[in-house]
Amino acid sequence: MNPSADCPYDLWDETIEFEGRWLRTKQIRFRERKSKHEGVWQSSHRVTKPANCEVDGVDILAVLHKNGQKFFIFVKQYRIPMKAWCLEFPAGLIDEGESVEAAAIREMKEETGYTVTKVLQRSEGVQGLDPGLTDDSIQFVTVEVDGDDPRNAHPEQQLQSEEAIEVVLVECNRVLEWMKENEKKMHIEAMVYSFAIGYDLGQKFKNL
Amino acid sequence: MNPSADCPYDLWDETIEFEGRWLRTKQIRFRERKSKHEGVWQSSHRVTKPANCEVDGVDILAVLHKNGQKFFIFVKQYRIPMKAWCLEFPAGLIDEGESVEAAAIREMKEETGYTVTKVLQRSEGVQGLDPGLTDDSIQFVTVEVDGDDPRNAHPEQQLQSEEAIEVVLVECNRVLEWMKENEKKMHIEAMVYSFAIGYDLGQKFKNL
Repeated sequence: MNPSADCPYDLWDETIEFEGRWLRTKQIRFRERKSKHEGVWQSSHRVTKPANCEVDGVDILAVLHKNGQKFFIFVKQYRIPMKAWCLEFPAGLIDEGESVEAAAIREMKEETGYTVTKVLQRSEGVQGLDPGLTDDSIQFVTVEVDGDDPRNAHPEQQLQSEEAIEVVLVECNRVLEWMKENEKKMHIEAMVYSFAIGYDLGQKFKNL
Repeated sequence: MNPSADCPYDLWDETIEFEGRWLRTKQIRFRERKSKHEGVWQSSHRVTKPANCEVDGVDILAVLHKNGQKFFIFVKQYRIPMKAWCLEFPAGLIDEGESVEAAAIREMKEETGYTVTKVLQRSEGVQGLDPGLTDDSIQFVTVEVDGDDPRNAHPEQQLQSEEAIEVVLVECNRVLEWMKENEKKMHIEAMVYSFAIGYDLGQKFKNL
């Protein structure tokens, strides 16, 4: 209930409207301090965040190097809340006591079958997925996968029994083009699409 | 309740657990068809989507050209679900009967004060924000803002009385560096962070 000192709202009367095995729905009253505008904000919260962990999950940005070519590794997953197949980064919730990098390496193996050969970087803060609706959050880990490494000769997924996931490789320099060719055939997660727009702009703006 | 023919789950017993002014919380039973694994999926849904609109909102990727330099236009907004300030793309819900492009131009003016001088492209499908938790979705509109246009000499926000939003300009070629310098000071929305990683990789991979 205690917002930070620089919060522009007074917040009070926080109530839990639904408490489930996975999600909690909350409602809170707010007053914007300058305008005095009052209202109610409804929000959704995961109840599975590990103790001492800043975020709920990890998303993995994986570049596969194979036969001199470079691919981004995505997954296509059926998502019950959307009732549709969605193109996403490999991702997952962080287990109790697990580091973000360890979760990234584990999820890569489980969801794609690929063994990470190098962790390149990670984000440090809190990346909100839909901050107007939920505090669900992730950190990013960028990894390299050497496709010519013997461990990656025959990648085999290790899916949990409730998961329906296919691996999708997209040639790096065609990533935005691929999104445009496929955006009517499946849902594309917002952060995958913005990544592709960013990649395309980065190439266009280089040395301009 | 009717999933597509290629849905890998049987779905039944969909119930509404909470119905509010802004959000609906649902629960549905599922059985993965191959493994026969059964479970319950809990999800959160906006109730404000306009009729005949594929998505809930629009996110705007704006490049400001000013004095020969290029900047991305972001907004820093206090988000009650996260109880934190978040760096995001300018964005908003689409009004009843409004086109996605019109919503983008309107939200740019309201949230940042800038007048869009050119719409460059838009996404066509459904971009899910957090597809494991919600069907909340957007489309992207990429726009150009001519900062030397007289209409953009003194940009003034037109905020709604409940909004607390600051405009943040980031030099394009420093975008990932900026995220790394600021990620402990504020939350950074996942799709903004992945955009910055994409931009950086696009520059690195160009002509490699």
